[in-house]
Amino acid sequence: MSARVDIPADTSAAAKGTAPLIAAASTHVKGGYKKGLAIFDFVLRLGAVAAALAAAATMGTSGQTLPFFTQFFQFEASYDDLPTFQFFVIAMAIVSGYLVLSLPFSIVAIIRPHAAGPRLLLIILDTVALTLNTAAAAAAVAIVDLAQNGNSSANWLGICQQFDDFCQSATGAVVASFIAAGVLLFLIVISAVALRKR
Amino acid sequence: MSARVDIPADTSAAAKGTAPLIAAASTHVKGGYKKGLAIFDFVLRLGAVAAALAAAATMGTSGQTLPFFTQFFQFEASYDDLPTFQFFVIAMAIVSGYLVLSLPFSIVAIIRPHAAGPRLLLIILDTVALTLNTAAAAAAVAIVDLAQNGNSSANWLGICQQFDDFCQSATGAVVASFIAAGVLLFLIVISAVALRKR
Repeated sequence: MSARVDIPADTSAAAKGTAPLIAAASTHVKGGYKKGLAIFDFVLRLGAVAAALAAAATMGTSGQTLPFFTQFFQFEASYDDLPTFQFFVIAMAIVSGYLVLSLPFSIVAIIRPHAAGPRLLLIILDTVALTLNTAAAAAAVAIVDLAQNGNSSANWLGICQQFDDFCQSATGAVVASFIAAGVLLFLIVISAVALRKR
Repeated sequence: MSARVDIPADTSAAAKGTAPLIAAASTHVKGGYKKGLAIFDFVLRLGAVAAALAAAATMGTSGQTLPFFTQFFQFEASYDDLPTFQFFVIAMAIVSGYLVLSLPFSIVAIIRPHAAGPRLLLIILDTVALTLNTAAAAAAVAIVDLAQNGNSSANWLGICQQFDDFCQSATGAVVASFIAAGVLLFLIVISAVALRKR
C-alpha cells in the first residue's frame, strides 16, 4: 500500500541530506575530546594509586626504637601508638584498593567515551574516596604538628626531638596522601567535564 | 514547486506523527526530573549552610575559664589555644560563605534545569568545599579525641576532665561539621546525576 505525499523539494533535501551529516560530524569531534579525557583519567589514576600506596606503606612501616634503654623499659615509637596514624594506614589502604579496582571502569570509559554509567559511578566513588583520603591526611597533619611542636596550653610536649626518624616517615606519608588527594580532586573535575551533556 | 514522493502510509505516519510527539514528551519528563533535583539541591544547600554556620559559631565561641585561680595564673581554655581548632573555625567560615554564595547558582539551576554550566560550576566548587570541610572535621576529631583520652605512649594527658564545657562545645562543633560534610557529599551526587547527558 502506498500514499501520495506532496513535499516541497528543497525542504526535503535539507531534512534528509544535510542535517544528519552535520550531527554525525559533531558527534565525532565530541567523541575524540571525551576519549582524550578518559585516557588522561586513566594515567592520573595510576599516579594516584602510586601515591596512596606509598602513603599507606610509609606510615605502616614507620617506627623507631631509641638506642638506649633501661632495665624495664625500651623507648620505641610506632604508628600503632597513635590511633590517628592507625586510621591513616587503614584509610589509605582502602583508598589504594578502591583506586586499583576503579582502573577497569576507567578503561571502559576509554573504550566507550559516550557511556554515562561508568563516569557517574566513578565520580561518585571518587568523591567518597577523596573524603576518606582527606580525612586521613588532615587528621595525621594535626597529630604530626603536635608531635613536632607540642602545645604549651594543653601541656603536650613534642616527641620529634627524640623520635626524629619516626616523625620524618610520618611527614613523608602525609605529603604522599595529600598528593593522592590532589590527584583525586583533579579526577573528579575531569569526570564532571566529561559528564557534561554538550 | 512540489515533487511527488511515494511513501508507504504507515511508515510515514510513524515518522512524521508519532516520533516527534514521543521525543517532546520525553524531553518534558526529563526537564521535570531535573527541576525536582535542582529544588532538592537548593533545600539541602540551606541545611548545609545552617550546619556549617553552627559548626563555625559553636567552635568560635567555645572557651572555658575554671572557677579557681592562683595569684599568677588563671586556668582557661579557648579554641585559640589549639591551632587545629583555629583552622577549623576559619575553614568552616569559608565553607559557610561559599555555601551562601552558591545559593544563587542553585536558583539558576532551578530556573534553567537543562543548562550544564551552573551545574558544572557547582559540582567542582562543592568538591573543593567538601575537601576543606572534611579536612577541618577530621583534624578537629583527632584533637578532640586527644583532649578526651590523651595518649599514654606520647605522654599527652587528656584535658577534658578539667575543661568539660570546652570539650563539649568542641565535640558539638565537630558533629555539626560532619553533618555539613555529609550534606555536601549528597549535593555532589545530585549534581552528578543531573549532569548526566541522558
